[in-house]
Amino acid sequence: MAHINDHYLKLKAGYLFPEIARRVNTFAQQHPDVQIIKLGIGDVTEPLPAAVIEAMHQAVDEMAVSDTFRGYGPEQGYAFLRQKIVDYDYQSRGCQVAQDEVFVSDGSKCDTANILDVLGTGNTVAVVDPVYPVYVDTNVMAGSTGIANDQGRYQGLVYLPATADNAFNPDLPSTKVDVVYLCYPNNPTGAVATKQALGRWVDYAKANDALILFDAAYEAFITDPAIAHSIYEIEGARDVAIEFRSFSKNAGFTGTRCAYTVVPKSVTGTDRQGNRIDLHRLWHRRQATKFNGVSYVVQRGAEAVYSDAGQKQIRQLVAFYLANAQLIRQTLASIGLDAYSGVNAPYVWLKTPDGLSSWDFFDRLLGQTHVVGTPGSGFGAAGEGYFRLSAFNSRQNVQEAMRRLRNDFKT
Amino acid sequence: MAHINDHYLKLKAGYLFPEIARRVNTFAQQHPDVQIIKLGIGDVTEPLPAAVIEAMHQAVDEMAVSDTFRGYGPEQGYAFLRQKIVDYDYQSRGCQVAQDEVFVSDGSKCDTANILDVLGTGNTVAVVDPVYPVYVDTNVMAGSTGIANDQGRYQGLVYLPATADNAFNPDLPSTKVDVVYLCYPNNPTGAVATKQALGRWVDYAKANDALILFDAAYEAFITDPAIAHSIYEIEGARDVAIEFRSFSKNAGFTGTRCAYTVVPKSVTGTDRQGNRIDLHRLWHRRQATKFNGVSYVVQRGAEAVYSDAGQKQIRQLVAFYLANAQLIRQTLASIGLDAYSGVNAPYVWLKTPDGLSSWDFFDRLLGQTHVVGTPGSGFGAAGEGYFRLSAFNSRQNVQEAMRRLRNDFKT
Repeated sequence: MAHINDHYLKLKAGYLFPEIARRVNTFAQQHPDVQIIKLGIGDVTEPLPAAVIEAMHQAVDEMAVSDTFRGYGPEQGYAFLRQKIVDYDYQSRGCQVAQDEVFVSDGSKCDTANILDVLGTGNTVAVVDPVYPVYVDTNVMAGSTGIANDQGRYQGLVYLPATADNAFNPDLPSTKVDVVYLCYPNNPTGAVATKQALGRWVDYAKANDALILFDAAYEAFITDPAIAHSIYEIEGARDVAIEFRSFSKNAGFTGTRCAYTVVPKSVTGTDRQGNRIDLHRLWHRRQATKFNGVSYVVQRGAEAVYSDAGQKQIRQLVAFYLANAQLIRQTLASIGLDAYSGVNAPYVWLKTPDGLSSWDFFDRLLGQTHVVGTPGSGFGAAGEGYFRLSAFNSRQNVQEAMRRLRNDFKT
Repeated sequence: MAHINDHYLKLKAGYLFPEIARRVNTFAQQHPDVQIIKLGIGDVTEPLPAAVIEAMHQAVDEMAVSDTFRGYGPEQGYAFLRQKIVDYDYQSRGCQVAQDEVFVSDGSKCDTANILDVLGTGNTVAVVDPVYPVYVDTNVMAGSTGIANDQGRYQGLVYLPATADNAFNPDLPSTKVDVVYLCYPNNPTGAVATKQALGRWVDYAKANDALILFDAAYEAFITDPAIAHSIYEIEGARDVAIEFRSFSKNAGFTGTRCAYTVVPKSVTGTDRQGNRIDLHRLWHRRQATKFNGVSYVVQRGAEAVYSDAGQKQIRQLVAFYLANAQLIRQTLASIGLDAYSGVNAPYVWLKTPDGLSSWDFFDRLLGQTHVVGTPGSGFGAAGEGYFRLSAFNSRQNVQEAMRRLRNDFKT
């Protein structure tokens, strides 16, 4: 008989966003006249940049003619896109990344999940808490954890709490870990790490022979010039870190699907005999065997992000969402709530008032203010008592949501 | 230290198509004036159907405007596409498949690889030999096998030889297996299975509590009305089979990327306690956690395949490639080579002449005839002495390749 992967049975049933959707739908059905404003899920709302649209039209036209038609592309992505990524995202910042170290994919979610394919069992894995749920759930699926406790924490994972007490930058693990997920600018807290803080992580990884999985999906939102956009701005990171990037949030590709992962050839893991094996070779083999490349039309769209017009347009997009974030931060401050971040990230993380639990605050905001956010506890035990508001919405909707907040939370 | 997945180290270094590319490049460099015709890799050459082009342009335009812009879509695919798949590919043939049993993805390669995520370790897995290499390599990566022997066969896998002796339809396994991969019309042999033959597989699966992974990527090429397009045309298959389909070969999507997998809710596996677990739930969770859906623009393109114009256009595309296949078959017969298939499939499988090995015939065809095909032994030990010619090319190229063959193999 066919045996299933039993590790799946350890997964907690209620994924965060379906539970939010359930509560919102229930409320909407009971109050059909209420206009609910959603600042919950981190999905973009503004159209694709004009340069991307133009490039995609052109690529569609190429697919209509034999001479320019494209069949299977390279599983790792077309050179025209990989080279742009190297030039604009790395060399321009003084980072040494080679074209064949860049793997174009259909999403950072996929990549941060699939990377576990090339890692073995028995690694001790650390995540920051609160955390993007995919890091945790894919480790559960891969068998790197035991079962979950009442707080939703899985046995075997090392949770590194990020709270207001440590300014949402957790201390290094007190025990030795083999793999650590870092996400800066952070989802969900919006926190950023200084170069010094990242340097400590790189030093830790070197000292402990650990691997850093660095998720930089939100790097475009960094406004502070002192903050690193890439882990490879840190000396030595090429030996210990894999970096994930995406076109989802800077260029609005959440429904268009393009991302990339950098696996430097100098990053290694260890086989059972203790030999150093470079992960680049394994990831290359993984992608060649289990993936067939990103749609040509989409890769041409992503390439256009690096054109002069595209660069200007994505800066405008990012500035637009950051202005929303500023509006949210200022409003929260004006009504006496503790709001963090939203300066170098499209998320504003806040402390729930009156000691409310994250879900109680969610229900109050939905029921009274008719605004949807994301309960911090949904991202991990250390997120309890916190709440995330997303800047991804139209200006009009954010303004209206803030007007309602000011009304409802008048002191 | 970070442990790697040691199973990757069992993989044989030389994947088939890179080795072909190496030999072709070497020859081309030594003979820069020779025009080589490639009938090797199964990649389409004709442009996308006009209906698909039109739909993709329209979808790109939608992405340019706030009101019609699409962010994250459902991980399982948009209802507009899933319902068309149900109506046209299943209900029209009397197969019961529900919309939520259809999972849209970016490729059948990905799906046939990723399906192992939800299966446990310790399954005995059977493949037909010769075989699409992805089935084997992904099982190696997942740890379902031991190391490879000199013939390239991995310990622990059950190989079912398909040769001229059994008309390329292997017998049922003589030992009990838990999972079996079937691909009809077959890649690489082009063989098809009668409904009776598929019925025996379904009966075997029921009797042995086995799971059938049915790859129907080439179903559009079936011309014989007695041949099943879907495993679900067979009574009882809904309880034992998962089916993989693709837009790559019928609509030319190899570079556009869209496919789908049907996981009926009645298909189950067994957990360690012996409980029946439905695989639909696990696959749903897998896709929701590790995948973020197919590009909206691409899904609209795939939807257009089901329009009246789209249906007509893909029938023309398929007929075009099948006429190429007929030309190849007839030429091979005229020069006295044993050619199989190419009637219900875009591949012609042939016996190498004069007892040549598959690679020797490859070298002769490349060196003398300047035509590239695929050595049968690259698909498995039982493919030794066979060779694959693909019908995916322009008419002009196929005609020229056949003219050369007739000249070089004059009897």
